[in-house]
Amino acid sequence: MTLSIICTDRDPIPWVTALQEIDPSLSIHVWPDERQWDEVTFALCWKHPAGVLQSYPNLQCISSMGAGVDHLLNDALLPQHLPVVRLVDPGLAQSMFEYLCTAVMYYFREFDAYHTYHSQALWHQRPPKMMAQTTIGVMGLGQLGGYVAQKLAQMGFNVVGWSRTEKAIANVTTYAGKAALPPFLHQTHILICLLPLTAQTGNILNAELFRQLPQGAYLINVARGEHMVEEDLLIALADGQLQGACLDVFRTEPLPPEHPFWSNSKIILTPHCSSITNPRSVAPQIVENYRRIQQQKPLLNLVSVQHGY
Amino acid sequence: MTLSIICTDRDPIPWVTALQEIDPSLSIHVWPDERQWDEVTFALCWKHPAGVLQSYPNLQCISSMGAGVDHLLNDALLPQHLPVVRLVDPGLAQSMFEYLCTAVMYYFREFDAYHTYHSQALWHQRPPKMMAQTTIGVMGLGQLGGYVAQKLAQMGFNVVGWSRTEKAIANVTTYAGKAALPPFLHQTHILICLLPLTAQTGNILNAELFRQLPQGAYLINVARGEHMVEEDLLIALADGQLQGACLDVFRTEPLPPEHPFWSNSKIILTPHCSSITNPRSVAPQIVENYRRIQQQKPLLNLVSVQHGY
Repeated sequence: MTLSIICTDRDPIPWVTALQEIDPSLSIHVWPDERQWDEVTFALCWKHPAGVLQSYPNLQCISSMGAGVDHLLNDALLPQHLPVVRLVDPGLAQSMFEYLCTAVMYYFREFDAYHTYHSQALWHQRPPKMMAQTTIGVMGLGQLGGYVAQKLAQMGFNVVGWSRTEKAIANVTTYAGKAALPPFLHQTHILICLLPLTAQTGNILNAELFRQLPQGAYLINVARGEHMVEEDLLIALADGQLQGACLDVFRTEPLPPEHPFWSNSKIILTPHCSSITNPRSVAPQIVENYRRIQQQKPLLNLVSVQHGY
Repeated sequence: MTLSIICTDRDPIPWVTALQEIDPSLSIHVWPDERQWDEVTFALCWKHPAGVLQSYPNLQCISSMGAGVDHLLNDALLPQHLPVVRLVDPGLAQSMFEYLCTAVMYYFREFDAYHTYHSQALWHQRPPKMMAQTTIGVMGLGQLGGYVAQKLAQMGFNVVGWSRTEKAIANVTTYAGKAALPPFLHQTHILICLLPLTAQTGNILNAELFRQLPQGAYLINVARGEHMVEEDLLIALADGQLQGACLDVFRTEPLPPEHPFWSNSKIILTPHCSSITNPRSVAPQIVENYRRIQQQKPLLNLVSVQHGY
């Protein structure tokens, strides 16, 4: 019995180290350097080549190396009978909160405007804004979205949340389902997208949605590039419907050098760094699921393949 | 008996309104439009013209319109026998924390570096930093400094504090007195200056102090421009001893258009907006001190003229 690490855009070595720190006796392979493909019972994957999981005849469980599983479910050749699990990392939620706190505060305290004044050698005080009168709308209230909504409310912001199914979060007004999207959007000054990427949520950040926000709203996308129609964002920024955007995820990553986002001064652009999974922090739950599969026990953080998260 | 508002670089009208909301019967003058100078018993001042307070024969109390009183004490013709009071505004501490949270997070999550990468169309992830391994040093642990140190510690940063006299703040390691300055500085990655401006603290942010910080430290000055030797900052930024600085206060305000800070890309520059006193929030304590003077009761927020705060 072996655990195989199958990843294409990250370094597997820190993951091997972290897993062996938990259990030095663990048998670990790193794709494509497999010795016995039939020994592998557990696959730990990040952006695996489509179809490759068909090569493991005795695979019993597929785990994402992060919170998202869209990279797994998008593979039409994924073995359909196997359970899919994802990682839930408390450090990930904290890292995401730190990133969002930075982006939100930068906009709220108008450091963007002061940066423009700086470039013009212009001394001009803007009238202060109040946190309680600034509404942050969080789309997606899962492990990350729920945590972030709660922390932003604790800071003093007015926070509203929207998700597919009903959620209850202290000091956050929540909305659920498609019909509740307009009243959620109408009051949102700062929109944060933390949705899972599913057939229902792809392209949800589009011109029609932007029109339902108050004029001059701010967009932060830290979920997936596929949530956003890029052309619609550029138009909304140009015509002032959106004042600015902070983007950490893109339809193509790395973002190609010729992409128009690079030269847009209304966009803060970061290279998918809002929350980076720390292998040490999640190794225990990977080893635990590896053992549970052997013991035929219920798995941690099992994904609903139907819902896509 | 009359209260006179004597200010030169802010609008007195919102102050008149806020004070009359508390007590509509209050007699309020606005300098220089005085009717009876001998009626004035209470002066509410912001950057008053030096010597002007000598013109009020029956003055009994001088109040700053903010937390700082250096603009009062710097007037050699200030009537020496009168009590000086300042304003303590809980909203001011919150506003200051918001500003510092913005500046600290922007540096901590390296949005400054990502902004540079953005301008070069460069996709490059930086290794994540941990709050607990990032030390923020707060100089000055009064109403503002103490509050800010506590809130930054609550966020998860390692916080140390330095002040003239011993202070105890939960989860903050504190240092007091000149001899304790080097050990405080040696560990500080982000230095925040919130000191009162006195004969002892003027020019304290100088080359000798910068040398005692770890190389690549970050400076935030939200106290007074006179705390900092501007030439020393420019040298420390140029030679890399400091990675950057966020400045809200300057020796001359507004900062003159030809000043070298405007064109320095390592400086974030804001126009003395880190915490703006809201007249409505402080009007009750002004009216209370006005009444206490009449009733010969002890004053709120009395300043030690000897210590300068």
